[in-house]
Amino acid sequence: MSDSDASWIKTVSLSPPSLQDNTADTERLISVLKAILQTDAAIHIDLDLIKKLPDILRQSDFNIRCTLFKDGYQWLVVGIQSADEIRPVAGLAVDLGTSRIVLRLLDLAGGQPLAESGFDNPQLTIGPDILARIHFSESSDGLKKLNDFIVSGLNQAIRDLCQSQKMEPQDVYALAVAGNTAMTHLFLGLNPRWIIREPYIPVVNRPGIFKTAELGLQVNSAARVFVFPNIGSYFGGDLVAGILYAQLHRASDTAILVDVGTNAEVVVGNDNWLIACAGAAGPALEGGVTKMGMMAGPGVVDKISIDPQTRQFNLHTIEDRTPRGICGSGVIDLVAQLYLSGMMDIRGKLVPAVCGKRLKKIDGLMHLVVIPADQSADGTDLTVSQADLDSLIRSKAAMYTILETITMSVGMELKDLSAFYVAGTFGSFIDPRSAITIGMMPDLPLESYKPLGNSSLGGATLALTAAESLAEIDRIRDRITYLELNVNQDFMNRFSAAKFIPHTDKSLFPSVEFR
Amino acid sequence: MSDSDASWIKTVSLSPPSLQDNTADTERLISVLKAILQTDAAIHIDLDLIKKLPDILRQSDFNIRCTLFKDGYQWLVVGIQSADEIRPVAGLAVDLGTSRIVLRLLDLAGGQPLAESGFDNPQLTIGPDILARIHFSESSDGLKKLNDFIVSGLNQAIRDLCQSQKMEPQDVYALAVAGNTAMTHLFLGLNPRWIIREPYIPVVNRPGIFKTAELGLQVNSAARVFVFPNIGSYFGGDLVAGILYAQLHRASDTAILVDVGTNAEVVVGNDNWLIACAGAAGPALEGGVTKMGMMAGPGVVDKISIDPQTRQFNLHTIEDRTPRGICGSGVIDLVAQLYLSGMMDIRGKLVPAVCGKRLKKIDGLMHLVVIPADQSADGTDLTVSQADLDSLIRSKAAMYTILETITMSVGMELKDLSAFYVAGTFGSFIDPRSAITIGMMPDLPLESYKPLGNSSLGGATLALTAAESLAEIDRIRDRITYLELNVNQDFMNRFSAAKFIPHTDKSLFPSVEFR
Repeated sequence: MSDSDASWIKTVSLSPPSLQDNTADTERLISVLKAILQTDAAIHIDLDLIKKLPDILRQSDFNIRCTLFKDGYQWLVVGIQSADEIRPVAGLAVDLGTSRIVLRLLDLAGGQPLAESGFDNPQLTIGPDILARIHFSESSDGLKKLNDFIVSGLNQAIRDLCQSQKMEPQDVYALAVAGNTAMTHLFLGLNPRWIIREPYIPVVNRPGIFKTAELGLQVNSAARVFVFPNIGSYFGGDLVAGILYAQLHRASDTAILVDVGTNAEVVVGNDNWLIACAGAAGPALEGGVTKMGMMAGPGVVDKISIDPQTRQFNLHTIEDRTPRGICGSGVIDLVAQLYLSGMMDIRGKLVPAVCGKRLKKIDGLMHLVVIPADQSADGTDLTVSQADLDSLIRSKAAMYTILETITMSVGMELKDLSAFYVAGTFGSFIDPRSAITIGMMPDLPLESYKPLGNSSLGGATLALTAAESLAEIDRIRDRITYLELNVNQDFMNRFSAAKFIPHTDKSLFPSVEFR
Repeated sequence: MSDSDASWIKTVSLSPPSLQDNTADTERLISVLKAILQTDAAIHIDLDLIKKLPDILRQSDFNIRCTLFKDGYQWLVVGIQSADEIRPVAGLAVDLGTSRIVLRLLDLAGGQPLAESGFDNPQLTIGPDILARIHFSESSDGLKKLNDFIVSGLNQAIRDLCQSQKMEPQDVYALAVAGNTAMTHLFLGLNPRWIIREPYIPVVNRPGIFKTAELGLQVNSAARVFVFPNIGSYFGGDLVAGILYAQLHRASDTAILVDVGTNAEVVVGNDNWLIACAGAAGPALEGGVTKMGMMAGPGVVDKISIDPQTRQFNLHTIEDRTPRGICGSGVIDLVAQLYLSGMMDIRGKLVPAVCGKRLKKIDGLMHLVVIPADQSADGTDLTVSQADLDSLIRSKAAMYTILETITMSVGMELKDLSAFYVAGTFGSFIDPRSAITIGMMPDLPLESYKPLGNSSLGGATLALTAAESLAEIDRIRDRITYLELNVNQDFMNRFSAAKFIPHTDKSLFPSVEFR
């Protein structure tokens, strides 16, 4: 492993002490580190490391390798080894998702990713959504249980991930964790009670840096954990990580970053300002639609096209398995294609005359058969009801209205945006052409759409690999103005206009073929 | 308890959160504290306190009392209570002596001392002097044992002291600990091996601030421990505490501070500069002289006068008990009086013609009977040998030469010093008149002599009661120039001259009656 200037790892040669130069071991090291780092800031070394320092120095002939981290104004020494020590120095970026937790192991010296793994959030057994978990946290020992779930899940995953790389958990010296505000609270063992109650107050906005023992994480005992800051109860550290990853705060042209999920979390900004808001976009987007909707996975329909002449459905399933359901991106494709093929009208209603035999009444409700029983994995029709489609239309209208509102709040129009970053795994699967067609996203040139993948993990990775990131995260957090969405008459008017496909105002969607 | 500006305790009223002001609990508190403290510095709150914060805030109607401490540039919140909480907030100053450990319990709100206690350093069972203990620390588990001795001794003393004030150890939120470099290392569990080996390198010069759990101290879990910095292996935090206590660094006139013990530790300086040195003054001073010498205690002779006509001895014992020994200050009196009564010549030799029956040969060595058998507690003669007296003379000569050397090193003479601070318990008992008479201390006006008592404890107390002290300690430490005593021909010449009573150069001791 080699050091680079941006690295947290510094190889240090100290001049051995003499009668003329009898500075103590600790201060001898600190003064050289200050010179290397060109800093006047305090440099802190834990007592446990100080205890080992005299022997390491004398056994290494005063040539050592230090692993550093930064806490606000202060540098932290989290690891000291002999310069010829061959054990690796690893970091761990963590995306603390409500549904899934993803870990990325990094070589701290060079910043390269070494391996990645993920596991379903063990708190799912308590409740699929955050609200249920927060209510559970108020039961006796509830918070402790939720916290234990996540911490032991992480410890297990860290052990496995390290083992896969022939490392030990104690080779991990720094972690960066990004999650939404509620997940962050549960991870830190903080009472999330006030997050969901007016006026929606988190316990902490800037959790900062922790020793791993404080959090129960089993890695190197001197390691530190950086936890991303939040803007409030509904705008979490995962989004701040996303902004860092998209570099929204560095571009001179104004761009937008959208995390599409149950909540739509949106940031608009550039290198001068950032404005953010969050609003309920409805459950129809993430996880698909009601009973047939599901998370992406093998056999799940993620792409659909409908032949405008024959109305033949052409489905793509993940891993090309027999279809067993449809995910969010598939539903967006479906609605776009239904509209373009004339099977759905501009109000989002299925057109019986065109849909023909694909329509079925089940329990008195109109359903569209997407996958007939003889083609589905479980031998039953996979259908979507008019009610489900209505729900999707409301969700996409809410999303568009939120995007419109935040952009208007800074005196701009959606068409002025230079880039449209789509954060989150779900966002990566959306076909922007379909999203534009249904009027969920604005009619920008397709090349403006930039799926970021797991931007929360990407931001957490940057926090560990680019030494200036920690300060940058602070600046991002400080620069964000949070816009409370005012659901007033104007908002409702625009929402009503957006409930059509793609919109009542055709001039907003010049690229969409209107019927 | 009331707050004062200088106090670590701040009563804080937060405006309750609202939809328009939805800052998190932690940052809400931090921003008000920053305003009260008028600081831009970071304010750190431990995770364990953050966990309790939401409930404390809401139960107290957002009126709380915070206990603060400072770590370098950063403020620490170490306690948060409801503003109407009646539990006390205490601090603890500790003098970590080689022989004795003294604790002073303080009210942190007002800074007043509440109670004091002391106990013999439990490490005495390993060895009376530091050298023996350092050698012991190199045996298996030796360091751990020495550390355990001190930590469990402290924990017991803290429990007892708190109980005497109807408090709990967890009412203690801040500690300040001053000790010599070796004792500080043993207290922190740091290997003292290199302190006693050339080139005499401590593990750490500025230990700084610790959480109590790191040190095994059983007080409030959020409490912090400040450990005084040292200048090197032979100039410890107890002396830095002494300088703070004497305010040597604040006076425009140059003064001297001397800690008289086995080592003479000396600082000369003013508000512009400080110069320090330490040198072996010999065992003859502290603990008295050989077999009859002992630490001060009941029945120990601490003052002696000899009638110049009758040569009658007039003894004072501590607590007026039957005499059982003589302590250091008694020996200094004794030599001064022997000299003034003509029983000792200027070379420090007993004069047989004058001493008469008080002289006895024991094992072939000349002894002076100080307390005849019929007046002593154990019914045997208490004597002092010529060899013991020779040793005292060498010690006092070493002390004077050290004082002379350090003063000369800054181009001054001893007579130019505006004040002569005598640190340490032993120093408080010395009669300066006698010390001048034997030429151990310079012939300054008696009112220049200022015994400080336990200045190490006094400095530790200031660290907890005057908020600016921690920064001042840093400045003191930085300002001290350490003078390596060069035992060259010039030093030896001056040492030889100082081996006379009071000195070969009569002009240096105008107030002493020469014989």
